[in-house]
Amino acid sequence: MTLLRPDIAAMAGYVPGFQPPDNEAWIKLNTNENPYPPSPKVLEAIMAELGSDAESLRKYPDPASRAMRQTAAGLYGFPVDWLITANGSDELLNNLIRACAESGEEIGYVHPSYSYYATLAEIQGAKVRTFGLDENFRLLDFPTRYAGKLFFLTTPNAPLGFAFPLDYIDELAERCAGLLVIDEAYVDFAEFSALELVRKQANVVVTRTFSKSYSLAGMRLGLAVARPEIIRALDKIRDHYHLDRLALAAGNAALNDQTHLTKTVARIRATRETFVAGLERLGYCVIPSQANFVFASPPDRNGKRVYDALFDRKILVRYFSDPILAHGLRMTIGTDLEMEQTLAALKDIG
Amino acid sequence: MTLLRPDIAAMAGYVPGFQPPDNEAWIKLNTNENPYPPSPKVLEAIMAELGSDAESLRKYPDPASRAMRQTAAGLYGFPVDWLITANGSDELLNNLIRACAESGEEIGYVHPSYSYYATLAEIQGAKVRTFGLDENFRLLDFPTRYAGKLFFLTTPNAPLGFAFPLDYIDELAERCAGLLVIDEAYVDFAEFSALELVRKQANVVVTRTFSKSYSLAGMRLGLAVARPEIIRALDKIRDHYHLDRLALAAGNAALNDQTHLTKTVARIRATRETFVAGLERLGYCVIPSQANFVFASPPDRNGKRVYDALFDRKILVRYFSDPILAHGLRMTIGTDLEMEQTLAALKDIG
Repeated sequence: MTLLRPDIAAMAGYVPGFQPPDNEAWIKLNTNENPYPPSPKVLEAIMAELGSDAESLRKYPDPASRAMRQTAAGLYGFPVDWLITANGSDELLNNLIRACAESGEEIGYVHPSYSYYATLAEIQGAKVRTFGLDENFRLLDFPTRYAGKLFFLTTPNAPLGFAFPLDYIDELAERCAGLLVIDEAYVDFAEFSALELVRKQANVVVTRTFSKSYSLAGMRLGLAVARPEIIRALDKIRDHYHLDRLALAAGNAALNDQTHLTKTVARIRATRETFVAGLERLGYCVIPSQANFVFASPPDRNGKRVYDALFDRKILVRYFSDPILAHGLRMTIGTDLEMEQTLAALKDIG
Repeated sequence: MTLLRPDIAAMAGYVPGFQPPDNEAWIKLNTNENPYPPSPKVLEAIMAELGSDAESLRKYPDPASRAMRQTAAGLYGFPVDWLITANGSDELLNNLIRACAESGEEIGYVHPSYSYYATLAEIQGAKVRTFGLDENFRLLDFPTRYAGKLFFLTTPNAPLGFAFPLDYIDELAERCAGLLVIDEAYVDFAEFSALELVRKQANVVVTRTFSKSYSLAGMRLGLAVARPEIIRALDKIRDHYHLDRLALAAGNAALNDQTHLTKTVARIRATRETFVAGLERLGYCVIPSQANFVFASPPDRNGKRVYDALFDRKILVRYFSDPILAHGLRMTIGTDLEMEQTLAALKDIG
């Protein structure tokens, strides 16, 4: 097909996690969604934007996301030109690669982490290098000076759930010649964040999503914090009206309700601890988690067997056929009831 | 700044049309928005998706936009795999360039049309070639065989408002070695569409936006129709969750209310004819328009003078400093009252 770039015609494309129809009664623990609704302030803000006849939707949104960026700047303590919003953090990951890697240049990431990085690199024609983990969750064979244009560090790591210590992240930033992108999709469930490193290290970008802790996976919202020169580059690359009016209203309202965030996160963390204790009682090996999911292996280290048995019971978790992950499962933390039902099913499955 | 691609660091970036704050009383005729609210069915669909507590927003949207694509397929009479949705048609323009042009390869477009094509090419590192128009609105010096990877044809043309005849578009498709992207952002206000050419010509892509005729600029929605191999390429390049749940609900509902579309479009076309007659009475030269705007020149051919005088009266239109456009103004068709007020202001300005 000569109309298309050969690389694009040949690539497989990314397949997102299976989404059962909304109206089917699954226990859905496969895409790390939040089991609780977003802040009531989100609904209020959307309703206010809609008004009585949705008249405002006829007009373009604010291309600069000013209100939402101002709120985020106040919340995180950075000047507003250190911040950019996004249509989910996926948009940022895509545009970060475009901002720094020419076709043929290299980007890197940790394996295992988010395989979508590789798809995004492939679209750009960039080369990919991955680094594995040792038994202490440190990078294997990471060079003293990594020459790649960009390195993605997912922390807390998905699918494993551990977080890299801050002094280690700081050291990695020093060792990266290009950008170090710290993908903090799950950080609100963790004990610490690397956000302050943005002030210290000129090559650090921190990305956040609203899909997990803010219960807004359905609204596609993310943001990044970095030095203004990096933000300016991302700003040139993004679609100028990337966020719709309702998403902007939702994002701003969610940031403005930290009480709701704190309460929801505390609830999920408490459920996580109870679930982990239950798994351990069943003989599962569980990696200590800083996220809203756990990675756990059954005693026979056969992830597929347990995945299939849960699927038959309409409980959907995430199994990865990759040999380094096939011994376990990634399970999102749902409500207390959902996790009790999951534990009961796991006990029954054996 | 060695952290970024030199091309990106050096580029200027696209500046969208000026957006006055929502709460200020402007007559806003500068970004071709629709003066009427979207279909009431859009509001209903958004409310249904939100429910009583916005609970559904915690879950990811359908990555494949199945409901909306199915509706569009029925409406336009194409199989569903000939269709893709988008976060505004801007997303499609961006991804079409990525799909077919490597860095250093050429894409083309008509000058004047949408200058954002050049920005998107620059991000990709693609070269740009533009073709002017003769006095009959045909392309100047367009080769018998155009070897560029992609050619954008905006029809109806913005900012001039005329539409290329279908037989001429068909001929251009034959002459393009690469993709011919027919940007039909304004087509619902025109007398004919080139959509059927997608069946005939393997290299034709038709893009549509919901920002104009559907009154949904604030929701960022678009779609494209093309052969499945082209759609598949666009599908691999796009962010997998590019549309949020409320946008999907809005887009599907808008497509399902063709009665509202027809009524709104008829109203705007009637206002356009009245406005054009008024402009001609003032001695303006007006290009016959197939869109929801007109391009018109005052007798002294000084667009800037009239733009400034309208601005002082809080009437916002679009002036282009480009020498081939500086003699006129692009004015969106608003409500009857807005256009009467604009005509009165133009009469007063002289």
